[in-house]
Amino acid sequence: MRNHSLFTWLYPGMHIKRWLFLLVVGMTLLSLGAAYLLREAYLLYDFPGVAHYLTLQFIPRWGRGIIFVCVAVGSVSIAFWRLNASLLYAVVRPGSQNGSMAESLYTKRVLSRGPHVVAIGGGTGLSVLLRGLKDHTSNLTAIVTVADDGGSSGRLRQDFGVVAPGDLRQCLSALAEAEPLMSRLFQYRFRAGEGLEGHSFGNLFIVAMAHVTGNFETAIHEASRVLNVRGNILPSTLVDVTLSARTQDDEFVHGEHKITEHGASIHELFLNPSNAEAHPDAVRAVLDADLIVIGPGSLYTSVMPNLLVEDLRKALLSTSAQRIFVCNVATQHGETDDFGVADHIEALERHTAPGIVETVIANNNLGVLPDELHSTPVALNHPDARVFEHVRVIQADVVASENRYRHDFQKLAAAILDVYHGRESGMPGAEHRPSEEAVFVTR
Amino acid sequence: MRNHSLFTWLYPGMHIKRWLFLLVVGMTLLSLGAAYLLREAYLLYDFPGVAHYLTLQFIPRWGRGIIFVCVAVGSVSIAFWRLNASLLYAVVRPGSQNGSMAESLYTKRVLSRGPHVVAIGGGTGLSVLLRGLKDHTSNLTAIVTVADDGGSSGRLRQDFGVVAPGDLRQCLSALAEAEPLMSRLFQYRFRAGEGLEGHSFGNLFIVAMAHVTGNFETAIHEASRVLNVRGNILPSTLVDVTLSARTQDDEFVHGEHKITEHGASIHELFLNPSNAEAHPDAVRAVLDADLIVIGPGSLYTSVMPNLLVEDLRKALLSTSAQRIFVCNVATQHGETDDFGVADHIEALERHTAPGIVETVIANNNLGVLPDELHSTPVALNHPDARVFEHVRVIQADVVASENRYRHDFQKLAAAILDVYHGRESGMPGAEHRPSEEAVFVTR
Repeated sequence: MRNHSLFTWLYPGMHIKRWLFLLVVGMTLLSLGAAYLLREAYLLYDFPGVAHYLTLQFIPRWGRGIIFVCVAVGSVSIAFWRLNASLLYAVVRPGSQNGSMAESLYTKRVLSRGPHVVAIGGGTGLSVLLRGLKDHTSNLTAIVTVADDGGSSGRLRQDFGVVAPGDLRQCLSALAEAEPLMSRLFQYRFRAGEGLEGHSFGNLFIVAMAHVTGNFETAIHEASRVLNVRGNILPSTLVDVTLSARTQDDEFVHGEHKITEHGASIHELFLNPSNAEAHPDAVRAVLDADLIVIGPGSLYTSVMPNLLVEDLRKALLSTSAQRIFVCNVATQHGETDDFGVADHIEALERHTAPGIVETVIANNNLGVLPDELHSTPVALNHPDARVFEHVRVIQADVVASENRYRHDFQKLAAAILDVYHGRESGMPGAEHRPSEEAVFVTR
Repeated sequence: MRNHSLFTWLYPGMHIKRWLFLLVVGMTLLSLGAAYLLREAYLLYDFPGVAHYLTLQFIPRWGRGIIFVCVAVGSVSIAFWRLNASLLYAVVRPGSQNGSMAESLYTKRVLSRGPHVVAIGGGTGLSVLLRGLKDHTSNLTAIVTVADDGGSSGRLRQDFGVVAPGDLRQCLSALAEAEPLMSRLFQYRFRAGEGLEGHSFGNLFIVAMAHVTGNFETAIHEASRVLNVRGNILPSTLVDVTLSARTQDDEFVHGEHKITEHGASIHELFLNPSNAEAHPDAVRAVLDADLIVIGPGSLYTSVMPNLLVEDLRKALLSTSAQRIFVCNVATQHGETDDFGVADHIEALERHTAPGIVETVIANNNLGVLPDELHSTPVALNHPDARVFEHVRVIQADVVASENRYRHDFQKLAAAILDVYHGRESGMPGAEHRPSEEAVFVTR
């Protein structure tokens, strides 16, 4: 597109053509008006001799007309161009790229008309999803878990009494625009320094900003501004919640990172306090959305903690938006060992309600994962499972070819947008409300 | 100024008027050209009847002319205005204030024509100076010491092997524009967290950025960009230097913070390595400057370490720029106890060369400082001191009324600019090459 930037100005929706048209109409009218006034002046007054030469009267009248018009168009264009350059000088920050202004305007206008999408989850999974979605719409809201209590997030949570910043930071980096350096800085982890080691810069930014402004929400807002984030990032709750689990053996485990460490099969998940208030903007975003995407990400420790916030769960069940669940492509050791797609859906519905999602996007490009990950590709299992009766399963190749443990952000976004626009029938391997036979066939 | 923003557009040097003029000339020519073409067309062709009404021929010719011109001017203005709004939409970042574009353009243009000033020092003193100077010019270069080895800077220096970021950080904050929140964030010190406590956010930013880009200079450059810094900030050297002192009792003390702690009277100061290379841009800035300001700041631990860098000292002695020394307003406990203005100059010249500065700005608004500071106001002492023979002393009230331990950034900048423009005679208490009598009078 870079080579056609002059034409970019004429793309639909740029809010440029209408005003250029008005400019041309105005100039034509101006010419007409001046012509009448000049004609009247010629009839009424005698002009001094010098006017004869200034108005080039020794050249035939049509020749004069064309010369004047050409010179005029030239100088108006130059004037217009330079005025703009002067105005832009005032607003363009040093070091920012302003070479492709037409393109950046185009991107901004077009993306502002994209669907309103809410993405719910946490961790790397959510950031992969956002990285893909931001190329399709700027009306993005990420609702992020803040129950993390391990690593840098956990230490900051304990020392400063803020909600866990880690998952928010990953979203900020994913949605940051045009500043890959700042994203890298946000993800940077200190590798030395007693007590400093292991902290990520982005987490420290959020904590410091929360203390400077006295407010966690303002901290996120300011971080979004600094990173020029496309979209909106919200914690699912501002309450300092803890995640607890009851295992299949009726054991209780408290704290997010302990649940993963413990590794036992999880029967039930709780939030403490169980009545933690949802972030009101998150509830509003869910109710106003066109499309809601739940997952991918650690099922019990990233995705579920959001859905355990009661108001958010209620909003999800009452919104008119399309609701898609993106199933993980690989099992997670300690959380979802041996899980298939049906197990994911079953766990999701058990903790919320049947029908919480309408569509599931499952990967059909199953390969072999290296042994050291203790992870297997997630296949459509239990073809007799009841869950498939009220959930439509769309199978597509959404796995990253260089890292089969993760989604490919472009493939995933394309698959989601296809579902949203009802184009999924065209996708290879796609199917609607699969019969049991169809499911067997695709295994 | 905010209420006159429309007139602001017409201020000199805005680079706006010339193009508006060209626009008007172009439009007039366009009208003239169109008039000729229309006149020729009227003579050659018969227009259909509807043209009679479209061109309002039932109204007298001068009336038609005026109507067309008015409508035209209106639509051209609207078109022009809206086109600009559309263009600006592409470049203005969300949340930035674009209400007073005329003002921000004015500020940018005027300040870019200010004198080229180099400020040399470190710590709070330098940041107070820069805060004042940045309202007068954007051609500012701050040359900053990186010999600090105490506090957060010292810990980071030791753990990460970078030069000390603390003084650079203070300058960044002082020169940051329009984002007080980011400045506050940069100065924020973590007050909890094992190992994190005491670190300032700005220091962590610089260290993290240096690691991400692999380069300390790029880190400063990027930090300047993020903070929208007016001016240029350079470390005096990129070598990891250590400061050592020989006391009057012939004792050696190593390390900047140990020198202050030790508290003995300092006879001589060294840099290790003694041949540390100056930052080439710092040398260039000194040679190209119109005005060089040395100090204020801790004489031995902030100001002097810069001057001990050999190439920088040589550049100072050979530049054609005016050279002003801003004397501290209060003595510093452990460094300059009992010092007067003459002692400051004497120490400065002993470590560099006589004539290193031409003018000294000394405070003449001496008050009483609270006992707990262990500090007294710096007076003009030793009126028979030789140093006054080749240094011109300008006395002015440059002390902050709410904190007499510090300079007032506005008063100080005004005094410096007065010296630079040769207006110092108008200042209360000012004097040129004071005779010994004059010095006595002002004490």
